[in-house]
Amino acid sequence: MSKETALIDAMRALATHPAARGLTDDCAVLDFGNEALVLTHDMMVEGIHWLPGQDMADVAWKLVATNLSDLAAKGAKPVGVLLGFTLGADDTRFVEGLREALAAFDVPLLGGDTVSANGPRSLGLTALGRATHRPPPSRSGARPGDTLWLTGPVGAAMLGFEALRDGTGAATLAFRRPTPRLAEGRALAPLATAMMDVSDGLLIDATRMAAASAVTFTIISADVPFPADLPTARRDDAMRWGDDYELLFTLPPETLPPVPAFRIGQAITRSASPLMLDEACPTGPLGYVHD
Amino acid sequence: MSKETALIDAMRALATHPAARGLTDDCAVLDFGNEALVLTHDMMVEGIHWLPGQDMADVAWKLVATNLSDLAAKGAKPVGVLLGFTLGADDTRFVEGLREALAAFDVPLLGGDTVSANGPRSLGLTALGRATHRPPPSRSGARPGDTLWLTGPVGAAMLGFEALRDGTGAATLAFRRPTPRLAEGRALAPLATAMMDVSDGLLIDATRMAAASAVTFTIISADVPFPADLPTARRDDAMRWGDDYELLFTLPPETLPPVPAFRIGQAITRSASPLMLDEACPTGPLGYVHD
Repeated sequence: MSKETALIDAMRALATHPAARGLTDDCAVLDFGNEALVLTHDMMVEGIHWLPGQDMADVAWKLVATNLSDLAAKGAKPVGVLLGFTLGADDTRFVEGLREALAAFDVPLLGGDTVSANGPRSLGLTALGRATHRPPPSRSGARPGDTLWLTGPVGAAMLGFEALRDGTGAATLAFRRPTPRLAEGRALAPLATAMMDVSDGLLIDATRMAAASAVTFTIISADVPFPADLPTARRDDAMRWGDDYELLFTLPPETLPPVPAFRIGQAITRSASPLMLDEACPTGPLGYVHD
Repeated sequence: MSKETALIDAMRALATHPAARGLTDDCAVLDFGNEALVLTHDMMVEGIHWLPGQDMADVAWKLVATNLSDLAAKGAKPVGVLLGFTLGADDTRFVEGLREALAAFDVPLLGGDTVSANGPRSLGLTALGRATHRPPPSRSGARPGDTLWLTGPVGAAMLGFEALRDGTGAATLAFRRPTPRLAEGRALAPLATAMMDVSDGLLIDATRMAAASAVTFTIISADVPFPADLPTARRDDAMRWGDDYELLFTLPPETLPPVPAFRIGQAITRSASPLMLDEACPTGPLGYVHD
């Protein structure tokens, strides 16, 4: 068991309040007043979540976008963010990217804290949203017979990361400036039996949703959408790479999604493996695993 | 202007939503449902906010306590926290201190994120509360003629820090395990014209509240409460040291506080200096200034 896994297990033992959803969902969901508050806090660390020397405006954008993607997965409308910021060399660019992201997603900066630190910079963002459908979909509601869907292709962020890392001049926007699927999440929330965003890789995130739902997902790789410029030989990689922030969701058998989406598989009664890819157990790393 | 000051000014220009209170208050206050949500996010960095080698259980306690102190200053009842955690060598002790603090203050862990990073560890906590009085007191409501009060002595945390740093064996609890004045804050919220917690030093925090309220505070040092074991020669230091987390508040002229508190001065019409100490402008550093 990795150090992070052990720590998260210890934290889960503390997080007994139902609003915490056992720390196994994208967000906490807290009844507040006569509404439901949807909450998430994700961090980014220099050298792990962004490349050294990367434009801090893009880092700011991504910090906002990835947290809002968690809200999108619960069908929540963002109401504000709080920022935990570590000072660095290019704070002006960070503020510019933050301004752009807040404007693009129409969400206010409500507060936060700023500190000095030596060593790699660490950034945190708390995003708050208002549930538009109650209860918001969890990861655990998929049932055998449900269909499995994805709102868009996986692999563009991987190609963008590689282009940025290698300086090839190819498109990098999908990696640098992901778009949370907020409108799609709100449209899907009343219908989806389970929903999450794909942040660590399609195969690992599908495995997590299947495990939370106690079902097995069968995915047909020929039905998974990929970007047009993805080489066929990279499709397997693309299913194990995160950062695209599409929504993965299940629907009851006869229900069709109200937004553009791709049917990539279905839920069946739980078998030995939570995930079957083209009728086999996928092997090797399924995606980004926190260490 | 320091880097942090410049950055905070740039952030303030973004934080135009009224809930952000211009990033000049202890907390954001957001109308949500039919109630008011009180929000804060404070960070702690290894080597800056805690001593190298310090028991991580105490660090966890303090991270929770200092954020809840911000809620206390707005009279809010805590409803949950989200944790941004960086893995380190002594995570088991951290979790133990977190468990103790959450139990002591009866607040649930709702979510968060955990990352690996090299270099000094950085921790963040978002605390959420429910306003028990609306609107929650701000820093900006003090009026000439109001009386100025403090819920308890300043200086114990300074003595505790020095004892811990120097290994003298003297009491360190006040530095390691501060207590947010949650009950006091709730009792005071309906009455106080302005309120904040003293985190960076009495003199600097009083200056901030005076500036926000556009008044001058006159403080009589003989009326400021100090711990019994504080040498008289250290009283000036104690007024410039933070970490005691007492509440500083103003009341209308004829109002008496409903909780034990010490009257240390009053608000007068704004003069050249926002703070007068024993009828003189205090000189030198007034407290901890973020750099």
